[in-house]
Amino acid sequence: MATITVPAALPDVSEDVEQLHKAFSGWGTNEDLIIGILAHRNATQRKMIREVYTSIHGEDLLKALDKELTNDFERLVHVFTLDPPERDAFLANEATKKFTASNWVLIELACARSPDDLLAARRAYQARFKKSLEEDVAHHTTGDFRKLLFPLLSSYRYEGPEINAHLAKSEAKILHEKISDKAFADEELIRIIATRSKAQLSATFNHYNNDFGHAITKDLKEDPKDDYQKLLRATIKCLTVPEKYFEKLLRLAINKMGTDEGALTRVVATRAEVDMKRIKEEYYRRNTVHLDHAIAKDTRGDYEKMLIELVGSENA
Amino acid sequence: MATITVPAALPDVSEDVEQLHKAFSGWGTNEDLIIGILAHRNATQRKMIREVYTSIHGEDLLKALDKELTNDFERLVHVFTLDPPERDAFLANEATKKFTASNWVLIELACARSPDDLLAARRAYQARFKKSLEEDVAHHTTGDFRKLLFPLLSSYRYEGPEINAHLAKSEAKILHEKISDKAFADEELIRIIATRSKAQLSATFNHYNNDFGHAITKDLKEDPKDDYQKLLRATIKCLTVPEKYFEKLLRLAINKMGTDEGALTRVVATRAEVDMKRIKEEYYRRNTVHLDHAIAKDTRGDYEKMLIELVGSENA
Repeated sequence: MATITVPAALPDVSEDVEQLHKAFSGWGTNEDLIIGILAHRNATQRKMIREVYTSIHGEDLLKALDKELTNDFERLVHVFTLDPPERDAFLANEATKKFTASNWVLIELACARSPDDLLAARRAYQARFKKSLEEDVAHHTTGDFRKLLFPLLSSYRYEGPEINAHLAKSEAKILHEKISDKAFADEELIRIIATRSKAQLSATFNHYNNDFGHAITKDLKEDPKDDYQKLLRATIKCLTVPEKYFEKLLRLAINKMGTDEGALTRVVATRAEVDMKRIKEEYYRRNTVHLDHAIAKDTRGDYEKMLIELVGSENA
Repeated sequence: MATITVPAALPDVSEDVEQLHKAFSGWGTNEDLIIGILAHRNATQRKMIREVYTSIHGEDLLKALDKELTNDFERLVHVFTLDPPERDAFLANEATKKFTASNWVLIELACARSPDDLLAARRAYQARFKKSLEEDVAHHTTGDFRKLLFPLLSSYRYEGPEINAHLAKSEAKILHEKISDKAFADEELIRIIATRSKAQLSATFNHYNNDFGHAITKDLKEDPKDDYQKLLRATIKCLTVPEKYFEKLLRLAINKMGTDEGALTRVVATRAEVDMKRIKEEYYRRNTVHLDHAIAKDTRGDYEKMLIELVGSENA
């Protein structure tokens, strides 16, 4: 379900490294060459390129890139090139310093990564920042946000397919009671959402829908003034239908006055190798416009080129 | 710091397996032979014995043991023979069903294991019970107990030596304020204790002691009627001076009317390969009696023999 493409006849890593080095040398920078290589190598290949680059040129490729490139393009190349757990740690660290509604990467880490990928991100966070992700999140958040974010990020959810139908029914009832009482930050509600496996939660939300006549997300009406409620709704969406969660994020990032490059870069860089195909389908279904066309309309230059290479273009 | 001893000339695994099989066969069971082998093999060796036993005899060694042995001796052999992460998962699962003051294994998992050993136990829990440890703990506890236990068990603490001295000072102040207000289940207090690295917490508790004139554990006076306060105090002890925590547990298990075999078995089986030497020193210092003598006075038969083999005897 990835959208990035890797050439069938892949050059040697050392060849890629030399080309990248050449792209930085002499007058000006060859951005097309950089895009041509980095947007078309998978995570393992990029990791090797970085390692070989450092051993040959005595400098981190990302440092070299940061010196040569600017603005949105630089950030996209930087974020995409990072190894996924390192990238997650990097983005999460930014978010612990400034957690805003347009930077829900912590929710995405907790809900749209596999339990082992979340754990890999937590390990990478410790390696890079010499402290744990959850201690920073707990330290820098307060109130209901902390109550929800801490258990979401520190749970190591069970990933198997086994579910307990009886429990799904009884916990759907608990959720319905709490939501009816507008107790959105209730301990039991958070416990269920933060700790149960995705399979178990799907069963619970289905019971909710069947037994009470509405999808749980419908009952969590978005009060535009209540950021916590939005976050909770986003959490449930991201856990159960991540492609819809990301479609909406892209739609809001692209279609508002002034593009939200932060969100656009993050979603494209983190999903291009995971489920961008599915997100593009969802985007087309919801907007009757292909995602790459929408991106092309809203962005420019090398930033645009790199985004399009990552999501792939539709000749429609 | 382990107390178990392994023979210098170790028999082949298949030889151990045959001896164990022989110990179960014919009339009666040869308990001495079982103790002689299993109490004198380390975790890796016991794991291999179990694997080879299954492949040769088509039955799990632990099942065979359970059929032949009884009561406290059976439980000790069973618990000790388990691979440490599996053993932790097994004990934790019992505790999620019945969490009492005499069964603080969840605190021990959270505080006296390394972050990676706790994680290994969480993985073993999922493999065995098809759900996560933290979801069971959150499900089966309530109130202040849940507030403390959930983050303790789900944190993946940073383990490095780096500390932030400024933070240690400011968080010592927060702890002192909360404790002075008797807000023992305060969110901030729990956040600090549950998420900071052990090195950071040591620095914080030292600041507490220096700046406010008492050790934090002294300020958390034990109200014999308040189990939560006891638990919090035990948590801090177990995080900072685990050998004192375990010494006290053994002292209470042995010296009360009727031995507490549950606690005695757990502490001996889980610490014999870790820090039992240190715990024995602490025990002697506090009781002027060697631990093995105290155990010998209080227990009998094969159970006694196996305990003594695991903690080692002092010829005093």
